[in-house]
Amino acid sequence: MKSKTSKESLSIATHEVLPNDTNNLNNLFGGRLMEWMDIIGGISAHRHSHRVVVTATVNHIAFHSAIPYASIVTLEAKVSRAFNSSMEVFIDVWVEDLVSGGRVKSNEAIYTFVAVDQNGSPLQVQSIIPETDEEKARYDGALRRRQLALLLAGKMKPEDATELRALFMK
Amino acid sequence: MKSKTSKESLSIATHEVLPNDTNNLNNLFGGRLMEWMDIIGGISAHRHSHRVVVTATVNHIAFHSAIPYASIVTLEAKVSRAFNSSMEVFIDVWVEDLVSGGRVKSNEAIYTFVAVDQNGSPLQVQSIIPETDEEKARYDGALRRRQLALLLAGKMKPEDATELRALFMK
Amino acid sequence: MKSKTSKESLSIATHEVLPNDTNNLNNLFGGRLMEWMDIIGGISAHRHSHRVVVTATVNHIAFHSAIPYASIVTLEAKVSRAFNSSMEVFIDVWVEDLVSGGRVKSNEAIYTFVAVDQNGSPLQVQSIIPETDEEKARYDGALRRRQLALLLAGKMKPEDATELRALFMK
Amino acid sequence: MKSKTSKESLSIATHEVLPNDTNNLNNLFGGRLMEWMDIIGGISAHRHSHRVVVTATVNHIAFHSAIPYASIVTLEAKVSRAFNSSMEVFIDVWVEDLVSGGRVKSNEAIYTFVAVDQNGSPLQVQSIIPETDEEKARYDGALRRRQLALLLAGKMKPEDATELRALFMK
Amino acid sequence: MKSKTSKESLSIATHEVLPNDTNNLNNLFGGRLMEWMDIIGGISAHRHSHRVVVTATVNHIAFHSAIPYASIVTLEAKVSRAFNSSMEVFIDVWVEDLVSGGRVKSNEAIYTFVAVDQNGSPLQVQSIIPETDEEKARYDGALRRRQLALLLAGKMKPEDATELRALFMK
Amino acid sequence: MKSKTSKESLSIATHEVLPNDTNNLNNLFGGRLMEWMDIIGGISAHRHSHRVVVTATVNHIAFHSAIPYASIVTLEAKVSRAFNSSMEVFIDVWVEDLVSGGRVKSNEAIYTFVAVDQNGSPLQVQSIIPETDEEKARYDGALRRRQLALLLAGKMKPEDATELRALFMK
Repeated sequence: MKSKTSKESLSIATHEVLPNDTNNLNNLFGGRLMEWMDIIGGISAHRHSHRVVVTATVNHIAFHSAIPYASIVTLEAKVSRAFNSSMEVFIDVWVEDLVSGGRVKSNEAIYTFVAVDQNGSPLQVQSIIPETDEEKARYDGALRRRQLALLLAGKMKPEDATELRALFMK
Repeated sequence: MKSKTSKESLSIATHEVLPNDTNNLNNLFGGRLMEWMDIIGGISAHRHSHRVVVTATVNHIAFHSAIPYASIVTLEAKVSRAFNSSMEVFIDVWVEDLVSGGRVKSNEAIYTFVAVDQNGSPLQVQSIIPETDEEKARYDGALRRRQLALLLAGKMKPEDATELRALFMK
Repeated sequence: MKSKTSKESLSIATHEVLPNDTNNLNNLFGGRLMEWMDIIGGISAHRHSHRVVVTATVNHIAFHSAIPYASIVTLEAKVSRAFNSSMEVFIDVWVEDLVSGGRVKSNEAIYTFVAVDQNGSPLQVQSIIPETDEEKARYDGALRRRQLALLLAGKMKPEDATELRALFMK
Repeated sequence: MKSKTSKESLSIATHEVLPNDTNNLNNLFGGRLMEWMDIIGGISAHRHSHRVVVTATVNHIAFHSAIPYASIVTLEAKVSRAFNSSMEVFIDVWVEDLVSGGRVKSNEAIYTFVAVDQNGSPLQVQSIIPETDEEKARYDGALRRRQLALLLAGKMKPEDATELRALFMK
Repeated sequence: MKSKTSKESLSIATHEVLPNDTNNLNNLFGGRLMEWMDIIGGISAHRHSHRVVVTATVNHIAFHSAIPYASIVTLEAKVSRAFNSSMEVFIDVWVEDLVSGGRVKSNEAIYTFVAVDQNGSPLQVQSIIPETDEEKARYDGALRRRQLALLLAGKMKPEDATELRALFMK
Repeated sequence: MKSKTSKESLSIATHEVLPNDTNNLNNLFGGRLMEWMDIIGGISAHRHSHRVVVTATVNHIAFHSAIPYASIVTLEAKVSRAFNSSMEVFIDVWVEDLVSGGRVKSNEAIYTFVAVDQNGSPLQVQSIIPETDEEKARYDGALRRRQLALLLAGKMKPEDATELRALFMK
C-alpha cells in the first residue's frame, strides 16, 4: 500500500453564514461549525483512503472568537497521520474580513475518521508522508494525541502512555 | 449568588434519525449528533445561568457504535460544574432498541459554555452542588479536564497542571 | 398483551426557536410547532407500542400566545388511551421565561397515531393504565373525543354518539 | 370594508415529496404536511386581508391514506368565512397518480388565522361572499365549527352552542 | 402519442420568503429562487409527460428586482414546446404587493427537462399545442433557443443555425 | 482602482451529495446544484470586489451527466471579467470517482453578480487581469456573452451586437 502526502488529502469548503446558522447573538453557532468540520474532514479522509469513512473521535475544540452573520468561512482539512484504519484530520477554520479581504484563523479542530467496508468493519489505509514543517509537527503530535484518546477511553493505562508521561516528567 | 443543583439544569431532547441526518452507510452522521449536542448542551447551561450562553470548548468525543436511520435518540444534558463564567456540561446520548424498547448508552460528550452579556463579555454564574455519585464524580473530574484544556490551549504550563501530573506520577 | 402505564410513554423534546422557525412577527410559526408535535407524539406512540406508527388524526389545537424567537420550548408527549391499533397522545407545550426560568404552558394538542406493519396494516397495541388525576381525566375524555372524530368523519351517526349527546343534554 | 369572494383568496402550493419529508415507511410524514398546510393557509388568509396573519386554531385533520415518496402534492387553500379578525381557511390536499396524471383528494384541513398589527393585536377583516355550492356549505358550517372551538376552549357553555345542540337534538 | 395543450402542464407554487431564503440585504437570494424554479419546472414537465424528468439545461435568467423577506412569491410553470424527449418550460415569477395585493412580474426563466426511464435513457414525449398568443410566441421562439443551446454546446455549426442567422442577417 | 488577477477571486466549495439533495433517480437534483453555484459564485465576486454582491444573471447551464448520491462535488469559481459594477463568474463543477479519486468535469456555469451598496445601488469594481490561457479565453468571450445577454433582454439591437454578428457572418 503506497504512502501518500498529507497535501493530497487537502479539502476546502467555503461557507457563508446564513440566518439559520446563527445563535441568539447573531453569530455562527458552535454546532453548525462542528457539522461543517465533520463533513469536510470526512471528505479529506475519503480523499486519502478512497473508502467510506465514519467519524471516530473529535479532539478538543476551542471556540475563541465569535463569527458574525454573513461572514465568509473557509475550512481546510488535511490528514495529518494514519494509524491502521484510522486517520487523524486537522481542520483549520479561517474567517475573512469583509472589507480588507484579509483572513484570520478562527479555529483549529482535530477529528479522527475510520475507513470501513459496507459492514462497517475497519479497513487498512495508506500511511502519510508529511512535507511542510507544520505537517511534520502535526504528524509528530498525533501519537501523543492518540495515547491521550486511548487513555481517556480507558483503553490504555497511564503508565503505558509514554509520550504523555514525558510531557509531565521532563 | 445562590448555588444550584446539577439536576436543575437537566435538559432532554429526543430525536428521530431522518434521511438527511444519515451518512453513506445509512447511519446518523457525526456532525449532526454534535449539532444536537451543542443545542441541548446550550439549553442546559442556559437553565443553570438564565443567561445567553455560547459554546467555548468541546472535549474529547468518541463515536463507539453506529446509530442507524429511524433510531430514536435521546440526549440528556446536565451542568457538571461551573467555574466563574464557564459551565462544563455532560451530554449523555441514549439509543432505543426499536423492538424491546431498552436503551443503551451510545455516546458521552463534554462541552463547555460561557455565559455572556449582549456584547459577548463573560458573566459570573452560580456554582453547582452535585448530588448523586455520578454527579460528584463528574464534578471532581471537571478540574482535571479544565487543566487539560488550559494545557492544550497553551494557557497553563505542564508543571502547574497538578491534577494531571498526579495522574501520571502515581 | 400486557397493559402499560401512560407514564412509560413519556417523551420529551426541548427546542430552541431558531431564525427559520419564525414568522413575520419573529415568533415561532404554527406549522413548525405542529411538525415538532407530530415527531415527539409519534415517538411517544412508538414507546408505547414498539411498532412503526403513522399519524392518523390531529384534534383541535389552539395557539393562545406567541412564542418569540430564541425561546426554549419543551414538548412533553404521553399516550392517554389506546383503542385497538390507535393511540391518543397528549402533547403539552411549555415555554420558559428566559430570565426567571419559570415555565408556562403554551399549548396542548391531541394527536392520534396508528401502529402498522410494513404494509401499513394496523396492528393491535397494549391498553393504557392511567395513574395520576390528569391521566385519568384524559383517559376518560378520550372516548368522547373519539366519538367526535368518528362523527366529524361521517363514520358515526349523531344518535350513536352517546358520550357527546350527554354533554349537550344534561 | 368591502366584502370579497372566497375565490379571491385561492392559494396553491405544489410540492414534490423529497427524502427529508418521509417517515420510516417512506411516505410523507404528517408533521411536514401540517407545516405546508399552515404556510399556504396563512398565504390565503393574507390574500383576503392584506394583513400579517398568525395561526389561531387547527381544526380536526384526518390522514386517510399514505402519500408515498416522490409524489406530487397540491394544496389549495381558500378562506371559507371571516369573523371579525379571524378567518377560517379550508385546505384541500390532492395527490397525483404519477402514471395517469389523475388526482385524488388525500386530505382536507381547516385552520383559523387572525389578522394582527405589528404588536400582535387583532384587526378587523373583510367578510366573505361564498359563490359555489361547496363554498356556501363551508360558509354555513363555519358557525358550527366556531361554536365547537369555543366550547372546547371553555369559552362557551354547551347550552349556548345552539348550532351544535341542534345537531344532536334533531 | 396524443398531443397536449400547454395549459395542461400548468403548475403553480406559492412560497413565502423565510429567513433562510435571504441574502445579506435581507432579500430572496438567487440560488433559492433557481431551486424553486427547478422543482416547479420539473413538476410541469412531469405533468406533460407522466415520466420521471431530469433538468437538462437552464436558459438565460435575469434577476431584475430584489424580492424582500416575507414576500409572497408565486411561480407558474408551463411546457412551451416539446422536442423528442426534451421539454422547454417557461417559469414566470410573480411577487405580490403586501398592501394592495397587486402582483408584478419579477422574473421569467426557461429550463429544459428530459423525460427518462429508470436507467436515465431518454423517452419520447407528446408534442405541445399552444393556444394563447403568449403560448404561440413561446412555442415559435423555442426553435431559435434550441439552436442557440446546441450552438453554445458545440453540437451545431453557426451556419446550420438558420433561425439564429436570420436574426442577425435581416 | 487597482486591477486584480482572476486567480485572486478563486473560491472553492466541496460538498457531499446528501439524501435531501437528490431527485427521484437518486442523483443530485439540478436546483440544488444551481443553489450551490450561486453561493460560491457570490463569494468569488465578493472576494474580487469586497462588496455586498447580488446575482444579476445566469447564463446558459447544461447538465450533461447525472451526479449520484454520496458523490463528492467540488465547485471552483473565479471572476472572468468585470464591467463597471458587474462581474462575470465562471463556476466549474468537478465530480470525484469514489474509487480512483480521479475527477471529471461535470458542469460549467456562468453567473453575473453586481456589487451594490446598502440601498442596492451599483458600485464600481476593479477590472480583471487574466493570466492563464483559459482565463484569457474566458475574458475575451465575456464581451460576446454580454452582448447576447443585452440582446436577449431587449437592451441592445441585433445590428449593434458586433461580436455576435461576427460569429454568424464569418
